[in-house]
Amino acid sequence: MAAFSAPDPEYATRVLASFDRQGIMRLIGAQMTRVEPGHVEIELPYRADLTQQHGFFHAGVTSTIADSAGGYAGYTLFPAESSVLTVEYKMNLVSPADGEKLVAIGRVKRTGRSLTVCELEVLAVKSGVAKSCAFGLQTLMCLPGRADMPQAG
Amino acid sequence: MAAFSAPDPEYATRVLASFDRQGIMRLIGAQMTRVEPGHVEIELPYRADLTQQHGFFHAGVTSTIADSAGGYAGYTLFPAESSVLTVEYKMNLVSPADGEKLVAIGRVKRTGRSLTVCELEVLAVKSGVAKSCAFGLQTLMCLPGRADMPQAG
Amino acid sequence: MAAFSAPDPEYATRVLASFDRQGIMRLIGAQMTRVEPGHVEIELPYRADLTQQHGFFHAGVTSTIADSAGGYAGYTLFPAESSVLTVEYKMNLVSPADGEKLVAIGRVKRTGRSLTVCELEVLAVKSGVAKSCAFGLQTLMCLPGRADMPQAG
Amino acid sequence: MAAFSAPDPEYATRVLASFDRQGIMRLIGAQMTRVEPGHVEIELPYRADLTQQHGFFHAGVTSTIADSAGGYAGYTLFPAESSVLTVEYKMNLVSPADGEKLVAIGRVKRTGRSLTVCELEVLAVKSGVAKSCAFGLQTLMCLPGRADMPQAG
Repeated sequence: MAAFSAPDPEYATRVLASFDRQGIMRLIGAQMTRVEPGHVEIELPYRADLTQQHGFFHAGVTSTIADSAGGYAGYTLFPAESSVLTVEYKMNLVSPADGEKLVAIGRVKRTGRSLTVCELEVLAVKSGVAKSCAFGLQTLMCLPGRADMPQAG
Repeated sequence: MAAFSAPDPEYATRVLASFDRQGIMRLIGAQMTRVEPGHVEIELPYRADLTQQHGFFHAGVTSTIADSAGGYAGYTLFPAESSVLTVEYKMNLVSPADGEKLVAIGRVKRTGRSLTVCELEVLAVKSGVAKSCAFGLQTLMCLPGRADMPQAG
Repeated sequence: MAAFSAPDPEYATRVLASFDRQGIMRLIGAQMTRVEPGHVEIELPYRADLTQQHGFFHAGVTSTIADSAGGYAGYTLFPAESSVLTVEYKMNLVSPADGEKLVAIGRVKRTGRSLTVCELEVLAVKSGVAKSCAFGLQTLMCLPGRADMPQAG
Repeated sequence: MAAFSAPDPEYATRVLASFDRQGIMRLIGAQMTRVEPGHVEIELPYRADLTQQHGFFHAGVTSTIADSAGGYAGYTLFPAESSVLTVEYKMNLVSPADGEKLVAIGRVKRTGRSLTVCELEVLAVKSGVAKSCAFGLQTLMCLPGRADMPQAG
């Protein structure tokens, strides 16, 4: 519903570069497929090594891509020299994460001076049909002036 | 505080076997290090491919082991023929998950007929010193009579 | 987005009767202003005795009407002989609840056999302009066959 | 577990004065019964006008005193010239809030520069026996230099 505009015109480049620094995304095989002001999507194809005991995607994996989708949705709206941290989030896992891929969607609901709130949704796509398998809410913190990469030890 | 007794004397064997079926735990290198009635711990050594953009453990990875620790803490108290699902959970990430390993602790707070509530805590161990980096609350559902493994398609 | 149909044609009468049994709603002066399948709204005019220390609506008051809006949104979809319980909920208070009235909106996101998930939103209406002051997620349980009123002691 | 010390020696006076400015606490009849650094308790005797449809305390009322207990637990540790806001909180309602009174307990888990995390617990005391009816987690924000009272319009 809400329409946001990004103060940093290079927001998409900045977000994709940060995403590329998340080692876990490479490990699980996740890809960022949409980056717009206040809206980010991440897709994750099924693999047997991403599962819980019933053979579905593990709730933690579902949450991992949801957390990053929300974090980067917020980060699209942050200034060029800044970093993003997740303060907290909550996920409701409403049906089995069963399918050939997951699509996590992060959408900014409200952005403030230091805190931003996102809604999270994860779709399980099975035989080409998408169905919501998780909903969430997330609080992010903007760290102005903090480099978005590992700091020299 | 609360002391629980497990109705299934084989609870530890059952929990460890289920944990072994979670493909994601092998992928990230997590190990279950403690299994008692209503209390489970999971450890995860640091690897560069488990990180977010600052080089710390990703919040989703922290949550993945916390969710499994809580889920299996609940599962210790379930009957032999049953399965466990996470209904929802919430994590507060209170400091960077920075260290040579994480230890996730799941503790049952209350177990009911169908729903069980656990508290979650994750410690980051850095240079041998443990510090809480996340706290959570989780709701589990017991599925009586449901096999705890993939069902034949 | 989701469109729901109520299995009980008398759902609105049933919901309003249950709302009338909530003593707290009378005490604070809340009114149910919209009842549709999967969607309920509750309004609350400002009073000085509903406030926190800055003179705005207390977060607990905001939550009270949000919890009831979500609970009754779920209850519209439940069978005639049933009752509703809140299993858990989470609220993000994104701006001061400052205005001449609050409007709490509960919308069902997903309804299952025993559990239903709702999203919650509270608007603060100030000088006639509505602004979101809180977002939430809620898990409800349907108790089939349980009377929706006090049981004889 | 954690032991905190309050930087403001007048913390108890400051907390009680702020509590007295919460109009809702008078309306429902809540009393602050314990104030220590990082730990606050609030009690609420049963009244028929605090109930949901089954005659138990309404989940929103339970949350109202839990939110204030946590908020003031955090506030004990804040500087003299400051104010406290709830950023978000989550409650699990694990059993009916059925009894002659409720006791809400707020305990600080971690306090940082701007954000503080508390755990919340509510006991229902029935025939003199206390039983946990709700658990929660809460994020607070410290507003340094912000007066803890209504501002002149």
